[in-house]
Amino acid sequence: MASKWIYFFSKEKTDGNRDQKELLGGKGANLAEMCSLGLPVPPGFTVSTQACLDFYEQDKSFSEEIKSQVLEALKNVEAITGKKFGDASDPLLFSVRSGARVSMPGMMDTVLNLGLNEEVVEGLIKKSGNARFAWDSYRRFIQMYSNVVLGVNTSMLEILLEDLKDARGVEEDTELSAEDLKDLSETFKRTLTSEFGVVFPEDPSEQLWKAIGAVFDSWNNPRAIRYRKINSFSDDWGTAVNVQSMVYGNMGDDCATGVCFTRDPSTGEKKFFGEYLINAQGEDVVAGIRTPCPINDCSKNESNKTLATLEEAMPVVFAELTSVYKKLESHYQDMQDIEFTVEKGKLFLLQTRNGKRTTTAALKIATDLVNEGLVDKKEVIMRIDPEDLNQLLHPTLDPEAKKLVLTTGLPASPGAATGQIVFDSDTAHELNEAGKKVILIRQETSPEDIHGMAASEGILTARGGMTSHAAVVARGMGKPCVAGCSGVFINEEHKTCTIAGKGYKEGEYITIEGGTGEVISGEVPTIEATISDDFATFMSWADEFRVLKIRTNADNPEDSKVAINFGAEGIGLCRTEHMFFDVERILAIREMIFSQNPGDREKALSKLLPFQKKDFLGIFKEMDGKPVNIRLLDPPLHEFLPQRDVEKDDLAAALEISREEIERIISTLEEMNPMLGHRGCRLGVTFPEIYCMQARAIIEAAIEASDSGVVVKPEIMIPLISHAKELSYINDWVKRTIDNIFQEKGKTVDYKLGTMIELPRAAITAAEIAEHADFFSFGTNDLTQTTFGLSRDDAGKFLPYYVDQKILPCDPFVSLDQSGVGFLVDLATKEGRKTNPKMHIGICGEHGGEPNSIDFCHRTGLDYVSCSPYRIPIARLSAAQAAIRNG
Amino acid sequence: MASKWIYFFSKEKTDGNRDQKELLGGKGANLAEMCSLGLPVPPGFTVSTQACLDFYEQDKSFSEEIKSQVLEALKNVEAITGKKFGDASDPLLFSVRSGARVSMPGMMDTVLNLGLNEEVVEGLIKKSGNARFAWDSYRRFIQMYSNVVLGVNTSMLEILLEDLKDARGVEEDTELSAEDLKDLSETFKRTLTSEFGVVFPEDPSEQLWKAIGAVFDSWNNPRAIRYRKINSFSDDWGTAVNVQSMVYGNMGDDCATGVCFTRDPSTGEKKFFGEYLINAQGEDVVAGIRTPCPINDCSKNESNKTLATLEEAMPVVFAELTSVYKKLESHYQDMQDIEFTVEKGKLFLLQTRNGKRTTTAALKIATDLVNEGLVDKKEVIMRIDPEDLNQLLHPTLDPEAKKLVLTTGLPASPGAATGQIVFDSDTAHELNEAGKKVILIRQETSPEDIHGMAASEGILTARGGMTSHAAVVARGMGKPCVAGCSGVFINEEHKTCTIAGKGYKEGEYITIEGGTGEVISGEVPTIEATISDDFATFMSWADEFRVLKIRTNADNPEDSKVAINFGAEGIGLCRTEHMFFDVERILAIREMIFSQNPGDREKALSKLLPFQKKDFLGIFKEMDGKPVNIRLLDPPLHEFLPQRDVEKDDLAAALEISREEIERIISTLEEMNPMLGHRGCRLGVTFPEIYCMQARAIIEAAIEASDSGVVVKPEIMIPLISHAKELSYINDWVKRTIDNIFQEKGKTVDYKLGTMIELPRAAITAAEIAEHADFFSFGTNDLTQTTFGLSRDDAGKFLPYYVDQKILPCDPFVSLDQSGVGFLVDLATKEGRKTNPKMHIGICGEHGGEPNSIDFCHRTGLDYVSCSPYRIPIARLSAAQAAIRNG
Repeated sequence: MASKWIYFFSKEKTDGNRDQKELLGGKGANLAEMCSLGLPVPPGFTVSTQACLDFYEQDKSFSEEIKSQVLEALKNVEAITGKKFGDASDPLLFSVRSGARVSMPGMMDTVLNLGLNEEVVEGLIKKSGNARFAWDSYRRFIQMYSNVVLGVNTSMLEILLEDLKDARGVEEDTELSAEDLKDLSETFKRTLTSEFGVVFPEDPSEQLWKAIGAVFDSWNNPRAIRYRKINSFSDDWGTAVNVQSMVYGNMGDDCATGVCFTRDPSTGEKKFFGEYLINAQGEDVVAGIRTPCPINDCSKNESNKTLATLEEAMPVVFAELTSVYKKLESHYQDMQDIEFTVEKGKLFLLQTRNGKRTTTAALKIATDLVNEGLVDKKEVIMRIDPEDLNQLLHPTLDPEAKKLVLTTGLPASPGAATGQIVFDSDTAHELNEAGKKVILIRQETSPEDIHGMAASEGILTARGGMTSHAAVVARGMGKPCVAGCSGVFINEEHKTCTIAGKGYKEGEYITIEGGTGEVISGEVPTIEATISDDFATFMSWADEFRVLKIRTNADNPEDSKVAINFGAEGIGLCRTEHMFFDVERILAIREMIFSQNPGDREKALSKLLPFQKKDFLGIFKEMDGKPVNIRLLDPPLHEFLPQRDVEKDDLAAALEISREEIERIISTLEEMNPMLGHRGCRLGVTFPEIYCMQARAIIEAAIEASDSGVVVKPEIMIPLISHAKELSYINDWVKRTIDNIFQEKGKTVDYKLGTMIELPRAAITAAEIAEHADFFSFGTNDLTQTTFGLSRDDAGKFLPYYVDQKILPCDPFVSLDQSGVGFLVDLATKEGRKTNPKMHIGICGEHGGEPNSIDFCHRTGLDYVSCSPYRIPIARLSAAQAAIRNG
Repeated sequence: MASKWIYFFSKEKTDGNRDQKELLGGKGANLAEMCSLGLPVPPGFTVSTQACLDFYEQDKSFSEEIKSQVLEALKNVEAITGKKFGDASDPLLFSVRSGARVSMPGMMDTVLNLGLNEEVVEGLIKKSGNARFAWDSYRRFIQMYSNVVLGVNTSMLEILLEDLKDARGVEEDTELSAEDLKDLSETFKRTLTSEFGVVFPEDPSEQLWKAIGAVFDSWNNPRAIRYRKINSFSDDWGTAVNVQSMVYGNMGDDCATGVCFTRDPSTGEKKFFGEYLINAQGEDVVAGIRTPCPINDCSKNESNKTLATLEEAMPVVFAELTSVYKKLESHYQDMQDIEFTVEKGKLFLLQTRNGKRTTTAALKIATDLVNEGLVDKKEVIMRIDPEDLNQLLHPTLDPEAKKLVLTTGLPASPGAATGQIVFDSDTAHELNEAGKKVILIRQETSPEDIHGMAASEGILTARGGMTSHAAVVARGMGKPCVAGCSGVFINEEHKTCTIAGKGYKEGEYITIEGGTGEVISGEVPTIEATISDDFATFMSWADEFRVLKIRTNADNPEDSKVAINFGAEGIGLCRTEHMFFDVERILAIREMIFSQNPGDREKALSKLLPFQKKDFLGIFKEMDGKPVNIRLLDPPLHEFLPQRDVEKDDLAAALEISREEIERIISTLEEMNPMLGHRGCRLGVTFPEIYCMQARAIIEAAIEASDSGVVVKPEIMIPLISHAKELSYINDWVKRTIDNIFQEKGKTVDYKLGTMIELPRAAITAAEIAEHADFFSFGTNDLTQTTFGLSRDDAGKFLPYYVDQKILPCDPFVSLDQSGVGFLVDLATKEGRKTNPKMHIGICGEHGGEPNSIDFCHRTGLDYVSCSPYRIPIARLSAAQAAIRNG
């Protein structure tokens, strides 16, 4: 039986609908939906994603079935439009556009005006009565087709265009004459042959098949592959191709093309918002080559406020567009991003989709939609990608700080960023790898810049509007972006620029504020994100659904405070060793390490006791009423050793031993595999006085805090347990110490004593370990290392290659490996609870703030996840989504 | 309800039997059994091991119940013997001896003649009419009691005895007069008071209770604890105490004491064999102070052949003893080690037990017992400790080698050993730790020497017989021992000796041959063990029962040959990298490592190909018809890097790059945790050309071997797999390579492609991995490391402490951790077979030759274990025992 490969769409007959994104791509599904809604959409057809997969299966060729279905659909379009493809009198032209199931910035391969050739262009002139338009369309077609389909680097054609404008002394393409454009198209074709050996195809049918094939090919271009990898999208989705009859925004001044949003994509405010250009086509608006006009007063800003709005220029069209956008938003129940073209005063819709937006806007829209009664809380909670909350959590400029504003551009993506300037994406990437913070400055960005943008703190472009590539992508990434900043002039070759007349070289610092569009001299202090009412409302809704508690990893009172503000319900991991690196303390630590007997060790430890106690006291006060889980010393002792000669001499003097003895002891602490060495509870077993000191500091601080009215809930956590007896052995020491303190003080506090589960053996024997533990906390960093036999420190040499080659689906240190490491987490949870049903169980590895891992933790029935303070809102939302998703 | 703490034994009434070793200890259970058999055993009672545990529970005191039961038993003995304990006219004396459930050389605490004091000794004189005997008994009692019960270092008393003999000008204790001995006992008691502040207890009852308590105490003396640790015996067993009425072998020349074996404990020959001394007591025979006489002609050797046999001296007693030994052997169905005493011509039995024996003897006895129809094959298979086979597998002297025999002692424990001489056990231990091979030379050994003997290659003593401490313990340990070598004179203080007049200093080399008693000058080459007919018969019986196949770990044809001789059924692990360290090859390896692109790498690899191919060809020929499992490159590349400057320069010259570049590349290969780094299949993924070269070498060698008529069964094994996709990725490369070879050669061979399971994740996801594997082989060394998160290289700092503190029951690298690592082995086996029921599964870690681990492998249903060639017989026997034990 024949398969259906082609889906027709038109007002008259439409095969698909909005729910078929997997088959038709987002664009195709929405074109079909708009047709069904009776909206003015140029008719066309969608070649399905299945056809794309078939294309690859057939070694990049089209089956006869697909060929015949395309021809049939083409005939239908001809019938509806009354034009004929390749007809020299009234030609039917097509746009050919890719459309995968999700919007992929890496794959913007579009060909307009397909079907033109030397002969057909004459028909277009005849029919339109506009030779300039026809030749402009033809030269655009040659450019786009050469680039997208023929794979030619078309910058040479761009240069020919610029040369021609220079020769004519004009600024805008629109100022070139029909003759100019005719000559240019000739020149283009000649150049293609002379420079690239390419003969531009004249046969419209050949043009079409090659274009469809090129879109399919583009599914596997490096940009697309990279984008899918970044977003963990499957390579098996394929892309659809939309073949749609052309309408022309470039046929004269009664023509236009534009992009609009049903609500403000930056703030989320309920106001219609967009940009357009008269006598323009396709990508002209988003490519940022001309500064677009505002569609209405709401859409005005500093750079376009003097330009005529669509409302003013074409009031009838604007009224129709207004009615359309309302219909679409209410139909889709979400903010829409709409592409339209006006041909000779008639409105056509080319695309609608859920609009990209800043997270601020997303939350505003979400809360508004719920308040407007359009959608329910569950629905809006599921709509926000937790990672997007990152945007809100980035620091903003300190309002108290002095700042020298050099110039202002478009406020394209909110948030403040400071960094060293670079002028190309590769350098951005390199410096970021080297740990630098960079601001990427570009004339305008293109899909080739994705990796540079990802590597930057913020993006500044000299050209382009609020819907330019830079703006859209930066918002998607949650990066600050100032776009279309005319005060910036770039010399890419010399890696310099001037900003408002002041010269800057690569590596100098600037600051940008994407919420205001300000470009600021040097480094400016930033402050932590403040939480909007919408955010608070939205998060409170999330909290209504989530089951998992959210704790934080925090080692000091300051971080604890930040975490509380973000909604932390306790500390899941307080790493005591981070407190040791302080200058005042490190010498005492070293004295402890170099002690050759328990007596000396206790003496050195007694110097540390007051420091640790003070730390814990501060944390207990901050976390008043909330549990505080403190992990006893974990890293191998050599992490604390003196590195520099002067440190070694200081230590030798303090210990009254020779420098040689210091060196000797250091050498005895060296390990072949420190990750698997003398660390964690193994230190507690061999040097119990260390853990006893730490237990004393915790409990004395708890008593003191309790005395001052604070509600303390200390949890003492033993790391790196592999055997139940290790835990019972250490518990004996710790409990004895605590009982002594209770006797000394004549007072007790409640505390819990438990363990990390971070070694496979601990997970496997969890039932036995649970006999000695009030709680488990999964240390999934170490558990991932040992389960995979993979050192995070050393994996850099091959792990990226593994992910590239798809041997691993993703970096298991980023997203929990559910089938391997997850098996152990699940096993230990079940076995632990069998022994001790009352025990509470959480996770404190980096995975505790990662949405997929949080979903796993929810399904596994953990009590809480713990993550860094800035990830807490992400974790709260992820936990809510997990609860909703898993019903 | 009252518990039963005390078990009486006598011809008239006996509470216990041979099956109660756990309760009564081996000695007590066998005393009871002999009484039941009607044999002449002096009556007495056993204080049970339960009483020992109770003693410790009561803070080292005796409960009233125990006290009253002891007193009741004592009265029973008085009733049967007609003598009274503490009676000055006809005194009842006791021997007090420890007796745990297994014989423990570390705990030989015996007190004879208990109940004597100044007053009672007069009664003994009166009753025996032998003052010399009575005073000799008393001074012996003082000596033993002071040492064992009072804990005094009695060497000072020994010196007093030696001084007295010197003063009297006599050699033997027996030449001292009654008066001498009376004075000596006075001197002893005075010295105890003046030198040690000890008043020797006069009250017999106090003597008894203290003695029982001392035996209980001795359960926890350091020697006993150490011995239990070496043998993995539980501390919770406790020891029993046997309180037995005295009979006297030292009452005159119609008295004697002796030890005999029902078969020869060295060779296993069916001949009655033993030693005795006229007018001696207790430990005189085994202590080696006097050279004992042979009990019959069979028992004669070079040093005692002129002495009168028991058969000649006491023919009636000898006849009775003959009848007794036959009865005992047939009753116990095993060779017996019997202690007897003759008092005034009457035979008494003091102990019987299954005799310790050399492994040669054990196998001879085992096969004889089956052939005699006394026991069945299963029974004898279970009787041999697999580790004891080690004895047979040690090298013997090369008969071709020239050797200068210095002198000859008793052939106390077979096998040849070469080493540097030391004169004390601590030095033996130290040098052994430092990697030296030592021969321990002692006047005679004592339980204090256990650790020194364990650390030595062999033991040479100047005094003592075939049943001396040195001989018995050495046989137990499977160490070569030459005992009672009168040609050796030791100066312990100067750490020198003369052997047959030639001076030797500590550290000089000698060789001993424990099967002949020869002491040989310098180092002598040794050859591998040859296999006796008994061994072959016994092993063939074991093979009838075992289910597990036994393979070997072998990296070259030579080892393969040894392994085949020991019964290997294939190679379970051939480590290709061991072949790389050869001088000829290492440069090519380094060129491969330093290659910066696949082309150079392939060029370097092509140099290695012929070497590898030759290795494999040799192995295939040796293993004709048997499977050969070859693991592809596993260790991190930096293991092969040049260390010395000259090597670096050679490499720089070969590669035509600078020394600096060499250093730079070396530094890029450094890893934080090499065990978890870029190794195993990760090398195969990132540098597939390495594995392709190895696959080519294997398959080309297989085809070549096959062409020459050899039956080849190559198995290619990929190490360190953590994810199924790693294996499928590498399989693709390897299969492609092999298919190419098949095409080139126009010929194919069958081969298997599988993987190590040595990471927790591999075990967990075994079902998926099995889709790509023909076999699994558990690499339990690495699996133990990752499951525990424990680096074998670094564990030395704390693992011994863990075992000491009983946090871990044993070193998990020695005996497989069944509840942790074993869980993963079991899981992977089940999951792997679910996917691929035909796959074969084995183990190739060190555990593959360890009996407990082999039992686990049997229970888990593995197909085979693989171990080093010399462990193969142990593995075969362990596998048979596992099959029998688990029904």
